[in-house]
Amino acid sequence: MIGAAAQVPPPPTPPAAAARRHRHLLDFTDWTAEEVVSLLDTAEVMAQVLARPVKRVPALQGYTVATLFFEDSTRTRLSFERAARAQSADVISFAAGGSSLRKGESIRDTLRTIEQLQADLYVVRHPSAGVPHQLARWTNGAVVNAGDGRHAHPTQALLDAYTLRAALTAAGLPPAERERPFTGRRLAVVGDVEHSRVARSNAELFTLLGGEVVLCGPAALLPRELSRLPGVHLTADLREAVTGADAVMALRIQHERLGPKRLPSLAEYVARYQVRPAHLELAAPHAFVMHPGPLNRDVEVASELADGERSLVERQVASGVPVRMAVLYSLLVGKK
Amino acid sequence: MIGAAAQVPPPPTPPAAAARRHRHLLDFTDWTAEEVVSLLDTAEVMAQVLARPVKRVPALQGYTVATLFFEDSTRTRLSFERAARAQSADVISFAAGGSSLRKGESIRDTLRTIEQLQADLYVVRHPSAGVPHQLARWTNGAVVNAGDGRHAHPTQALLDAYTLRAALTAAGLPPAERERPFTGRRLAVVGDVEHSRVARSNAELFTLLGGEVVLCGPAALLPRELSRLPGVHLTADLREAVTGADAVMALRIQHERLGPKRLPSLAEYVARYQVRPAHLELAAPHAFVMHPGPLNRDVEVASELADGERSLVERQVASGVPVRMAVLYSLLVGKK
Amino acid sequence: MIGAAAQVPPPPTPPAAAARRHRHLLDFTDWTAEEVVSLLDTAEVMAQVLARPVKRVPALQGYTVATLFFEDSTRTRLSFERAARAQSADVISFAAGGSSLRKGESIRDTLRTIEQLQADLYVVRHPSAGVPHQLARWTNGAVVNAGDGRHAHPTQALLDAYTLRAALTAAGLPPAERERPFTGRRLAVVGDVEHSRVARSNAELFTLLGGEVVLCGPAALLPRELSRLPGVHLTADLREAVTGADAVMALRIQHERLGPKRLPSLAEYVARYQVRPAHLELAAPHAFVMHPGPLNRDVEVASELADGERSLVERQVASGVPVRMAVLYSLLVGKK
Repeated sequence: MIGAAAQVPPPPTPPAAAARRHRHLLDFTDWTAEEVVSLLDTAEVMAQVLARPVKRVPALQGYTVATLFFEDSTRTRLSFERAARAQSADVISFAAGGSSLRKGESIRDTLRTIEQLQADLYVVRHPSAGVPHQLARWTNGAVVNAGDGRHAHPTQALLDAYTLRAALTAAGLPPAERERPFTGRRLAVVGDVEHSRVARSNAELFTLLGGEVVLCGPAALLPRELSRLPGVHLTADLREAVTGADAVMALRIQHERLGPKRLPSLAEYVARYQVRPAHLELAAPHAFVMHPGPLNRDVEVASELADGERSLVERQVASGVPVRMAVLYSLLVGKK
Repeated sequence: MIGAAAQVPPPPTPPAAAARRHRHLLDFTDWTAEEVVSLLDTAEVMAQVLARPVKRVPALQGYTVATLFFEDSTRTRLSFERAARAQSADVISFAAGGSSLRKGESIRDTLRTIEQLQADLYVVRHPSAGVPHQLARWTNGAVVNAGDGRHAHPTQALLDAYTLRAALTAAGLPPAERERPFTGRRLAVVGDVEHSRVARSNAELFTLLGGEVVLCGPAALLPRELSRLPGVHLTADLREAVTGADAVMALRIQHERLGPKRLPSLAEYVARYQVRPAHLELAAPHAFVMHPGPLNRDVEVASELADGERSLVERQVASGVPVRMAVLYSLLVGKK
Repeated sequence: MIGAAAQVPPPPTPPAAAARRHRHLLDFTDWTAEEVVSLLDTAEVMAQVLARPVKRVPALQGYTVATLFFEDSTRTRLSFERAARAQSADVISFAAGGSSLRKGESIRDTLRTIEQLQADLYVVRHPSAGVPHQLARWTNGAVVNAGDGRHAHPTQALLDAYTLRAALTAAGLPPAERERPFTGRRLAVVGDVEHSRVARSNAELFTLLGGEVVLCGPAALLPRELSRLPGVHLTADLREAVTGADAVMALRIQHERLGPKRLPSLAEYVARYQVRPAHLELAAPHAFVMHPGPLNRDVEVASELADGERSLVERQVASGVPVRMAVLYSLLVGKK
């Protein structure tokens, strides 16, 4: 008969440590390494759900997740919406584009209006740093920062950490310390560091999990204050940055920032900061290549690396949905 | 385990009077006061649903609600979509923007095409008055007018009435007559009355429910024909309008209408028609301040009033979802 | 009580022949007449579902259908989304418009990214021929071509065949051969054949089902290679094309193609190729008028024909959802 819905097998049990202590994921300021590791473990369970024929569990049935994108990012928005629906949550999708919610009213009025939709969780992207924090103060729901200005993009950093932890383990290099899985590891992040929330969130998270981070790019684009984070170093020299690194992450270049201003021309950028095979030879033998996407082919990374066997780029993308499932689940339900 | 969906408590019972007599909500021409009061009572039940941890009932499971917005209004559209999903209906969202559904084909062809989606209920906003009525003639589904030209915006008027009835009751001024709850009450509506469907629908509804309405604005923007409605008065004098009023509702100013045409300059408008504390002193002691939103801060209403304790602005916004839940429920299911 | 969801009657049983042999519907190259007829039969069952008070079956519960529209077509997209939801599937809706998924990255990177959403079925429309085929090679999910360049639009051809088969049967002209229902029938397709994926898919499908097709339009717009298909003829003479035809299908004219280039002026086009009552007199006595929509009134077809009793235009539109339900169902579940 038509109605024969595929049978949903009983869902796997998430790790007990996925306790709900946090109402929000804004950045990692008030997260402990243990809590983050627990999130990563939950994401592994979610990846198992997504590997099944019917990629859906009723975990968040009856909950409503609202995605509020005041800055366009179809990729990230769809990833969150898929993560919500795969757990049977309802989704309200708000892409602010030219909406009156943005024009002619204060951000406070806008967020108050949105809150009246009474969603249980808000996923917020905004061009201004701090807007997700503001919403968190005004709403009764949970808030996930999906990128705010140059400040933070915590779910990107989580999926990067998730991907790298799995890749290191698969390469026979499992973490010595469960709760600080990147102890003894070094991540090089290359590009326009100053304007990158991905760089900031990765620096914060990778060091929280025990690792070292080298941030590399044109000197004018290396924000001094980041070097105050324990475990973070700055350098304008790509060869220095990649030497001994366990992973090299190239940041996406915004073409509108290239040229006279502070970034060099495209040709000069490629000459000085494109990650090429010769650089990987300076890194650890197993070193991985990462990129948050979307990639400008043969700009940030040589194509042969981006498509090569050391590349984690596709696995980073594939980690988006399970990691975001874990974030939604942990904030809304968690362990009691 | 992951799959532990929150338990949904049995939903409260809506008032028996919520009978389904109407297939459509286009304006209030053929609605009785009793029917409207029944809708407002149903909205109170819906507000209780939304106050529960799991804000969802299966009332409209299997029904499809299509939102057809030929004019942009993210706010209103999301409110309807939330109202549908909170009752487990499916939603088809159609924002007409640059769609071919709008260009190069007659409204008749467009609506016929849309109807083939076989939704059970269509929520329609359109810049031309009368389009929801046309669709109502052509479709088998129910039709809710979400704003058509200058003509009507009935769900806005319903949520205003719902908010005001509750506020008066909370202030110890409950209606003497259940079915005409605004008997003896006066509402002042201030602004560009001529171009406002909110003013028209409120005039229609407030008088249906027993009250008096004073419409106030620049003389050239006071449509004579509205004074023919029993209980409706027109005046260009704000002080006269607010004197003795139980509530003062300021309309949103469309900036593109200000200036040489027929509205005065912004400065002159603010000087003559901004609602300020001095005006409230002329009104009833308990008088409330209302605004359909989004507010132009310190244009239509002084900020201290909009944010003050007499302001119902936030409560109006919060009433949107429960009132629209009641409308969808009553048209689709009602009482049998 | 509120929660009284309408009772869903047990769904009808689809024909046993709806077996799942195909993972994709890209064009009809590898489909047999038997398989197509089975799809049309399944669509009839789906139409019965849509005629019930609650137009929803749980057939695809737990499945996710992603609509990827790199070219705007609200009409087709909503039709697919309704078809998915009417079977309880989840929908991810991706309208590429100005998305970064389109700009600055290769189609390969874009499709890989999208695939990470792990939908079970992708509905793809793209301005370039072949993109759905590419996705089919890269994804684990099923792929339905919703129109790719000038190449194919198979669900449009299926709904045309479905509509015409039913109309002929209702007119007392049921197919003599079940598996080749258009044996002995002739379809005339009139317009800008060269740029029409609708013409190509109909030529392919109608001949597969036993019929003859005459493609008619300005000589410069009649692609020679189509005449190599058995059962397909080309002519620039409208009277010749319609003589003896069982159905005349006028194609939509893209106004931007009219004029100096290769199409004549609008006036000349109307004079030479508009289908008028006089033409129908040359056709079979029962001959039907078809158009894929949206219609330019009094351009491709005289209004009196488009709105007349021989017109199948509205029935074509109405067939969109049941036919697409059958396609989704057959690819995802089929019989097994």
